[in-house]
Amino acid sequence: MKNYTVAVLGATGAVGREMLRILQERNFPVGKLIALGSERSNGSFVSFAGEQIPVQEATKESFAGVDIVLGAADNQTALEFAPIITQNGAVFVDNSSAFRQYPNVPLVVPEINPEDVRKHEGIISNPNCTTAISLTAIAPLRALSPIRSIWAATYQAVSGAGIAGPVELQQQITALGRGEPYPPQVFPHQIAYNLIPRIGEHQELGYTSEEMKLQYEGRKILHQPELTVSCTCVRVPVMRSHSVSASICFEDHVDVAAAREILAAAPGCRLLDDLAAEEYPTPLLSSDQDLVLVGRLRQDLTDSNRLNLWCCGDQLRKGAATNAVQIAELLIK
Amino acid sequence: MKNYTVAVLGATGAVGREMLRILQERNFPVGKLIALGSERSNGSFVSFAGEQIPVQEATKESFAGVDIVLGAADNQTALEFAPIITQNGAVFVDNSSAFRQYPNVPLVVPEINPEDVRKHEGIISNPNCTTAISLTAIAPLRALSPIRSIWAATYQAVSGAGIAGPVELQQQITALGRGEPYPPQVFPHQIAYNLIPRIGEHQELGYTSEEMKLQYEGRKILHQPELTVSCTCVRVPVMRSHSVSASICFEDHVDVAAAREILAAAPGCRLLDDLAAEEYPTPLLSSDQDLVLVGRLRQDLTDSNRLNLWCCGDQLRKGAATNAVQIAELLIK
Repeated sequence: MKNYTVAVLGATGAVGREMLRILQERNFPVGKLIALGSERSNGSFVSFAGEQIPVQEATKESFAGVDIVLGAADNQTALEFAPIITQNGAVFVDNSSAFRQYPNVPLVVPEINPEDVRKHEGIISNPNCTTAISLTAIAPLRALSPIRSIWAATYQAVSGAGIAGPVELQQQITALGRGEPYPPQVFPHQIAYNLIPRIGEHQELGYTSEEMKLQYEGRKILHQPELTVSCTCVRVPVMRSHSVSASICFEDHVDVAAAREILAAAPGCRLLDDLAAEEYPTPLLSSDQDLVLVGRLRQDLTDSNRLNLWCCGDQLRKGAATNAVQIAELLIK
Repeated sequence: MKNYTVAVLGATGAVGREMLRILQERNFPVGKLIALGSERSNGSFVSFAGEQIPVQEATKESFAGVDIVLGAADNQTALEFAPIITQNGAVFVDNSSAFRQYPNVPLVVPEINPEDVRKHEGIISNPNCTTAISLTAIAPLRALSPIRSIWAATYQAVSGAGIAGPVELQQQITALGRGEPYPPQVFPHQIAYNLIPRIGEHQELGYTSEEMKLQYEGRKILHQPELTVSCTCVRVPVMRSHSVSASICFEDHVDVAAAREILAAAPGCRLLDDLAAEEYPTPLLSSDQDLVLVGRLRQDLTDSNRLNLWCCGDQLRKGAATNAVQIAELLIK
């Protein structure tokens, strides 16, 4: 079995560290692991396979001999290094949003459109966390009827804002407990005991960039250029795992029992749907594992062609790092 | 000006205490205040108008000479005392759900259907907190086009579960901070840093009682027996104020600017809708005041006859105590 030289770009961030863990957990055939970061990361270490790996500053010279680069950096860094990565013959599996809408860059959720990986020209994009989690739960239902549109309200964890997010929530809660002030830095308002209905920047028609991702990325992943998705994204004082309350509009009437049967067998999903037994997805239950938990499945009372569901997924894992490693697995298959 | 003898039934609970505060704040003409509780409350005191009022156990004899009873007790207590209250000639403004669907009991949000107060036969019901908050924001939009249906996802504060809710969240957070366990008692799962997508008991078609209230109470308050509402109710680790992400389906296309203008002038509402200035409703902003904050107003991308909005309201005040005192004000007008 061949071993691969894998570089993680942005190895010290929340997603980068998770990528290192998941490469190990899934026994990805790593021959050599290269941890890359910004200048600031110089001199720091990350752990991989029981070893402390020095983090090197990413430069033009970092990618010689690399087979696969897992990108966990921001858009600017991704844009800067993408040409160098591809010139070196490596494949760039990028978690930034920089290339997601490029026509020659596949955008892949391995449970949904694995075949798209084959069309890559050196770059494959990983979807936004909320997109990956929502669509893993929603896409299997296309077996019952084509999906026309999706309405969603999200409940997004603070770790979606990077490592500083959980730190701010924790320290703010501690400070408030002592009666001390803790002015918001990462988030625009206090997040402890609060909700912030604004994630991303204003993009169009009153929607934020985060809200529009579910529509634009959904269209590409599902190969449905006409799909409409209307979304409200809300930050909640939860450490980890994003949750989504969705109403899915199908072409035809969809039977709840049939939908339940499909989701019980859907790859990447775990059906948890028993109110009487207090079984339903929660962020805590879905944290630190790879499945998207789905429940509260029921017919929408406003339209018999609609189904409602509630799903939770670990946005650092299935919403980012796991999905990227799954793409890398498809690449070497 | 006449003064009224007012009894608060359930005076030691979260809503009861708030009723006492609001009677004072709004200068309700209280001649005598009677604080009633269960046998357990015997010997305790509540404060009203600078005085400590002894809480009496509610009995058949408690209601002689009372003009208005504000009910902040559970359904069983409401059902037990309602006949005695009305036999004594008092009007019962009840916050329990016991009578909300009785044909001869008006269900009133004073900003929406104040005229219904006149039809009472001794009992007037206060709506569920989420209903009162959502409809205060949504009902004014009927000026633009009739409403056909509403889709909603809620983000409900722990104080909606009574005084024990915030205590559990606070103590659970403290215990977790010390690395100690704190098994859930009030809520079915850990609520600290978590979400619980189940409020109320299973009622029908996979929906909980809390979720169905918005439809059934909405039909009665809006006088629209055909209205459909599909709702997912979620408990969030927020102390106070419920939030709702809603999509409202109208008969016709509705212009966002026109909707904004209406909500800016709507009674009981405050429009906060400027993403660039980080102005939008949050639970913290809406806590401990009476207005329903409305924002994130925009056309639904899945249907041009739909509008999306986000609203927050203090569920102990506008969602319960304030609405009840407003009804009492209509009664004495």
